Amino acid sequence: MTTGLLEHLATGTPSLLNRLHRSLNQAMRSPAYREKLGLSRADEVTNLDRFAELPFLTKEDLRRHSPFGLCCADEQEIVRVHSTSGTTGDPVVIPYTARDVETFAALMARALSMAGMTDGDRAMVTPGYGLWTAGIGFQTGVERLGACAIPTGPIAMEMQMAFLRKMNPSYLIGTASMALLLGETIRREGLTPSLKGAILGAEQWGDGRRAVIERLLGAKTFDIYGMTETYGPGIAIECACQEGLHYWDDLFYFEVIDPATGTVLPEGETGELVITTLVKEGLPLIRYRTRDLAAILPGTCRCGSPYPRISRILGRSDDMITYRGVNLFPSSVEKLVAETPGLGSEFRIVLTTEEGKDCLDLEVERSCDGGDEPAKDLARKMKMTLSALPRVRLLPPGGLGREMKKTRRVFDNRSR
Amino acid sequence: MTTGLLEHLATGTPSLLNRLHRSLNQAMRSPAYREKLGLSRADEVTNLDRFAELPFLTKEDLRRHSPFGLCCADEQEIVRVHSTSGTTGDPVVIPYTARDVETFAALMARALSMAGMTDGDRAMVTPGYGLWTAGIGFQTGVERLGACAIPTGPIAMEMQMAFLRKMNPSYLIGTASMALLLGETIRREGLTPSLKGAILGAEQWGDGRRAVIERLLGAKTFDIYGMTETYGPGIAIECACQEGLHYWDDLFYFEVIDPATGTVLPEGETGELVITTLVKEGLPLIRYRTRDLAAILPGTCRCGSPYPRISRILGRSDDMITYRGVNLFPSSVEKLVAETPGLGSEFRIVLTTEEGKDCLDLEVERSCDGGDEPAKDLARKMKMTLSALPRVRLLPPGGLGREMKKTRRVFDNRSR
Ligand SMILES: [Zn+2]
Ligand SMILES: [Zn+2]
Repeated sequence: MTTGLLEHLATGTPSLLNRLHRSLNQAMRSPAYREKLGLSRADEVTNLDRFAELPFLTKEDLRRHSPFGLCCADEQEIVRVHSTSGTTGDPVVIPYTARDVETFAALMARALSMAGMTDGDRAMVTPGYGLWTAGIGFQTGVERLGACAIPTGPIAMEMQMAFLRKMNPSYLIGTASMALLLGETIRREGLTPSLKGAILGAEQWGDGRRAVIERLLGAKTFDIYGMTETYGPGIAIECACQEGLHYWDDLFYFEVIDPATGTVLPEGETGELVITTLVKEGLPLIRYRTRDLAAILPGTCRCGSPYPRISRILGRSDDMITYRGVNLFPSSVEKLVAETPGLGSEFRIVLTTEEGKDCLDLEVERSCDGGDEPAKDLARKMKMTLSALPRVRLLPPGGLGREMKKTRRVFDNRSR
Repeated sequence: MTTGLLEHLATGTPSLLNRLHRSLNQAMRSPAYREKLGLSRADEVTNLDRFAELPFLTKEDLRRHSPFGLCCADEQEIVRVHSTSGTTGDPVVIPYTARDVETFAALMARALSMAGMTDGDRAMVTPGYGLWTAGIGFQTGVERLGACAIPTGPIAMEMQMAFLRKMNPSYLIGTASMALLLGETIRREGLTPSLKGAILGAEQWGDGRRAVIERLLGAKTFDIYGMTETYGPGIAIECACQEGLHYWDDLFYFEVIDPATGTVLPEGETGELVITTLVKEGLPLIRYRTRDLAAILPGTCRCGSPYPRISRILGRSDDMITYRGVNLFPSSVEKLVAETPGLGSEFRIVLTTEEGKDCLDLEVERSCDGGDEPAKDLARKMKMTLSALPRVRLLPPGGLGREMKKTRRVFDNRSR
């Protein structure tokens, strides 16, 4: 019923720089985080320009230090972990303090409230529970609002339909794919759904899909954003205007950067979203590269909310390559490169089309002089992932050049 | 860290009768519950003998009124539902108020604390989440204690092992089957587990299995008890003495009855456990027949705890019949009988052995005069469940006789 913590945080409204200092101080409780930031005291960051020079935090950083290297609370303060799905490598474990759990519930309640949910509503919560952050996050938000959670989770569609009929929910929470399937099933069975709203996230879905879903469900849809690293979903959500997602600037500092150069882009320009948490304790994020492409929207929303907005997420800045039907992650290649004796850390994936077929060239720096054995070794390892032997070309150390902020790993020159 | 609510409840320590009145008053907020109890005012129950004359509440009652017929809170007070698994028929939906969620967390924290868990521990929570009550119940209890929940849920054993290695838990929470499998895997991989305790419930497991599990895990095991209807697991648990399960008599009133006659049995005698909740709001239980066989143990435990004890659960009072390798529930037969035109509600399943083979006779009362069609109809329906055609015998209305407290549906006269 109350978002007490958040209102408490809002009183006094410290300046953004003060809030960033607070979060930096929390981050610097971890020696590894201090080293990563290259700071010994938070007040070395004297202004926002200086903040914009701090190094980015990446998922690879989180993975390398998982589970507790970047943890900034005492072990006894951690009451829960969640984990990323691990499809791109080892799962990354995110630790939560009791206050993090509380903040997550409060921000989720605020998000659901922006989507019109009140204590009289019943919400079917279809995302996964357990290690995944979404299920329990949505559920606690629903309960916090005093609405009723129907925690179906990812059970079979037949059971989802049984609970839909029996419980008559007014909100559906899940992915757009789930909403589409449920909507089609509802129509096929000739039911008249009583849904008022559908809160959908965790995957990209465009306006075409939105129109279909809204028609099938007879309900307004609300795009919701977030990820395990930022507590979970609920850090940004559409209001009824559907003109961008409001985000909570008392809890998060959003920047948008050029993904290639790392330069901060002005309002309105699309780039990679970079998130700094302002009150997170277990694993605070300082300039976390989300790899999600979006813009910070100028002006205020017609709904009158004081919270600023981002555009909907337009894609991922790099992450996945699809090569001859196989999904490949640069981080997987990086791992194989690291495991191959004779190779340095630097590599480049070059994709081309030759005679109508995808080709993958891997350019890798040697760590020392020697023969062609490392190239054969790496190609063999890659074949297990790719089901195709890549061409591996060895370069002398430093042969690939260097970037100041971010190294581009993938050059996709394939014809479309 | 605190079980504040429960300490609050303990102050003043009202008499048992006062507590029962409080729960009866809550139950009587539902018209259907009032009718079921045959009461118009709680204080008609003037003493415990009178309480022992109240009718039993059964799972069938819950099912018939699911989801909200027996709900004793305003709809706006309900913040969550859970559901029984539905293997024996339609899932039964149990509504929770915010206070029920709080009580569940507090009683679970008390249970885990009795098993020795403290804020320095890490507990792997392997039961299911979502509609199931156990996952979230254990997790909130762990968090309430200030320990760290690792919410693996029912993921594949390979992933369980990955989290075991990565997170080094000191407690395992799950079923005995899960503990056995995990223990065997740990030993096969030559790991030295760092577990201190394993909290195991949701299925029967005897002392033989306990010895094997404790040896494999190198940890003490604690049998824990509870079901969705009673919030969830955690309403009773073994202490380190392993001489029965302590239960929370400030939150529950336990009776043990003769399952055939319904007579309350004295301390020390084994019968069916009947549970009355004392502070539950959403769906309070008044004399709920658990179908679990146990005894209330006399005397006090060597551990010095003031909480009384029950024996471990010795079995189920009736529930499942195994017939030619197929599991059959009387409630499923009841449903089929109810769906067959021309039949009344009363039936009897008689199992015999003829020429070394299981035989099933179904004796069913007609609802009106007529031909043999209902018998054929029912037999056809039964065949889909049983994979064998039962013999159905029609009796006139009232032909099966009547019981005062509980009707026995199953007569198993098979030779063993
Ligand atoms: Zn708006
Ligand atoms: Zn004891």
